[in-house]
Amino acid sequence: MRAEIIAVGSELLLGQITNTNAKFISALLADNGIDVHYQTVVGDNPQRLENAIRIAEDRADLIIFSGGLGPTKDDLTKETIAKHIGAELISNEHALQSIQAYFERTGREMTENNKKQALVLSGSTVLENRFGMAPGMAAKANDKTYILLPGPPHEMEPMFRNEAIPFLQHAIGSQDIIVSKVVKFYGIGEAELEHRVQKLLEAQTNPTIAPLASKDAVTLRLTAKANTADAAQQLIEPVLAELYSQVGQYIYGTDEDTLSSKAASLLTEMRLTISAAESLTAGLFTALLGDEPGISSSLKGGMIVYTREAKVNQLGIDEKLLDEHGVVSSECAEALAEKVRERFQTDIGIGLTGAAGPDQHDGAAAGTVWIGVAKNGHSKSFQLRLSGSRNSNRLRAANYALYYLIRDLESNSI
Amino acid sequence: MRAEIIAVGSELLLGQITNTNAKFISALLADNGIDVHYQTVVGDNPQRLENAIRIAEDRADLIIFSGGLGPTKDDLTKETIAKHIGAELISNEHALQSIQAYFERTGREMTENNKKQALVLSGSTVLENRFGMAPGMAAKANDKTYILLPGPPHEMEPMFRNEAIPFLQHAIGSQDIIVSKVVKFYGIGEAELEHRVQKLLEAQTNPTIAPLASKDAVTLRLTAKANTADAAQQLIEPVLAELYSQVGQYIYGTDEDTLSSKAASLLTEMRLTISAAESLTAGLFTALLGDEPGISSSLKGGMIVYTREAKVNQLGIDEKLLDEHGVVSSECAEALAEKVRERFQTDIGIGLTGAAGPDQHDGAAAGTVWIGVAKNGHSKSFQLRLSGSRNSNRLRAANYALYYLIRDLESNSI
Repeated sequence: MRAEIIAVGSELLLGQITNTNAKFISALLADNGIDVHYQTVVGDNPQRLENAIRIAEDRADLIIFSGGLGPTKDDLTKETIAKHIGAELISNEHALQSIQAYFERTGREMTENNKKQALVLSGSTVLENRFGMAPGMAAKANDKTYILLPGPPHEMEPMFRNEAIPFLQHAIGSQDIIVSKVVKFYGIGEAELEHRVQKLLEAQTNPTIAPLASKDAVTLRLTAKANTADAAQQLIEPVLAELYSQVGQYIYGTDEDTLSSKAASLLTEMRLTISAAESLTAGLFTALLGDEPGISSSLKGGMIVYTREAKVNQLGIDEKLLDEHGVVSSECAEALAEKVRERFQTDIGIGLTGAAGPDQHDGAAAGTVWIGVAKNGHSKSFQLRLSGSRNSNRLRAANYALYYLIRDLESNSI
Repeated sequence: MRAEIIAVGSELLLGQITNTNAKFISALLADNGIDVHYQTVVGDNPQRLENAIRIAEDRADLIIFSGGLGPTKDDLTKETIAKHIGAELISNEHALQSIQAYFERTGREMTENNKKQALVLSGSTVLENRFGMAPGMAAKANDKTYILLPGPPHEMEPMFRNEAIPFLQHAIGSQDIIVSKVVKFYGIGEAELEHRVQKLLEAQTNPTIAPLASKDAVTLRLTAKANTADAAQQLIEPVLAELYSQVGQYIYGTDEDTLSSKAASLLTEMRLTISAAESLTAGLFTALLGDEPGISSSLKGGMIVYTREAKVNQLGIDEKLLDEHGVVSSECAEALAEKVRERFQTDIGIGLTGAAGPDQHDGAAAGTVWIGVAKNGHSKSFQLRLSGSRNSNRLRAANYALYYLIRDLESNSI
């Protein structure tokens, strides 16, 4: 099965947004053994969209559209496809009710143009939108399969993964079972990781191992094909074990784990409570932990002590310590961790201090960060020397604090 | 002049990387008045690339390629174009010297395949690569213009901006100056905004007005063309004034403004200090403000009081107030704002409390949020009813707090 992805939206052609949808859709299709031969972007223009559809039909069996399902007059994807394949647009009762419920729930007035979002192609399978209003669709005509997805990634991604992929698996009647395992690393660069596991990367064909670098983390995706899920799983396991043996200290989780979800699940499983005192990160560490549902049994709270004055007056950091070692120091990081732990009476206290940049701070070069971890009167600290922009340094500092927390919880060293 | 961008690389079709090059190139073309009608992505496959070139020639005058200029056997862009337009590939002395110098400088050995990078299309204008080895090219054939750029963004972006754009400006002999103004909205949906300014949107041709919805904000881009920048600016101004008059309460800024940068610049200009007490957002509001360089003169810090216990013990919220009104209440939000303001001795205090979801919290439905704003003994509060996921609700709560803060700072009402 050959696929083409057509993203619809003039904002893409104007360079106002990046086409992240094509990447997301392509990666999931690759996992499912469907080859993408072309990705196309076209504006909110029905003639040009129809030309793109004709061209795609010449070179693909499966055409996946994203964007243009919304309520405005620019949103013309389903109208154009309906005309092209000779389908009607009919109102979908379930979708209409969802839209009405959305407006009632948010107390806003539903304008007439929002009803347009409930129109679907006659004869299509409706794909439910759990994070927005416009439903998706899967339609077949002239031996081609057309999948229509909304443009906003937070609506499109769960719909594609949870609704469109099962539809496609059924449609291709695949006998191969594909099992993937994503292994997630922190604290190591892509080049260094590839260098360290080079032999493993080169030797593998089933599972394949595909590296994937994002701005601040490295991921390896293991993908195995077999007749059964168990058999595919069994192909993955020895390779996974080898990865843990070679570079396990950088692995913080797998699959859907994030640094914050992993830290949160370890904390709640181990019934440990935590608080944090943050300077350069100004609440980011605690906010990341707060992302996780159920964290309130572990996360008691924290102090944001952005200024020296706040560190001394609000948290009781000794002025002499700051005079002697500076605000950006292991001593300050550990004192922040200890003081916040005492104050919130938690098992663990985290302290974050540093020079986010662009300027030096209290004598420390931009990018210098100290992370303190305190438990039961013991404390230790970790230094980072980061070289990014102010905000990438702040985010990395918070992420490294999660990473050190995970590593230590897993080794029971704190 | 109609343009098409063709990005070449199988890693794009496999979903391993995002096509950020298309966004970058499109945005600069838009600023220079060149319309992009299509963006295409094709793999490292000469037949499919040639098909893409034929299609692009039918619908564009200018075809811009990125990727496939490197030393490996997969890199086939210039070979395919040379064959297609009937040009030779000749070694460029200047490029070859640069490549040799690069290897000498880095002390690595230059392998034979690296010489391939110095081959350029005969008759083309060579675009210098200051951040890598493969030169770019600009060629004309059959009334079409072909621009070849390297794939890595850190090589492509400066080459396109500094070498290809001047080439194109000269080629089109443009007299038009293009001026854009981006107007940024919060607290209003795309559909409602378009509904309210529909007449203005329909009446405008110069400047054009293009709506753009992102995950959590709406933006209008006004673009005017004229003989001089001043004349273009003068076309924009009355339209901008009309927007402020019709929907000004939702406009928080323009161009590069973000909610946090706007709030930070108002706070620092007005020499006001701020602190925040956060429950559901767990530090996110303060972390967003902390994004802004120079905020330390205004942002003193904050308390993260995630649990009821922390609200009472750490911040001194009256237990009777919580018993009577609940944790998710205007009373609690205002008390949080007042208590944190007193404690950090700041001009403004912000309090955030709510039920992030997925479950109800202390009797309040998921998505219910109260934002308290306190100043000099006066306080007020705002209610939100959000319907997103847990984390989109938390982010929206923090963003709405910034929005209300901006609105009140601008109207001097606090």
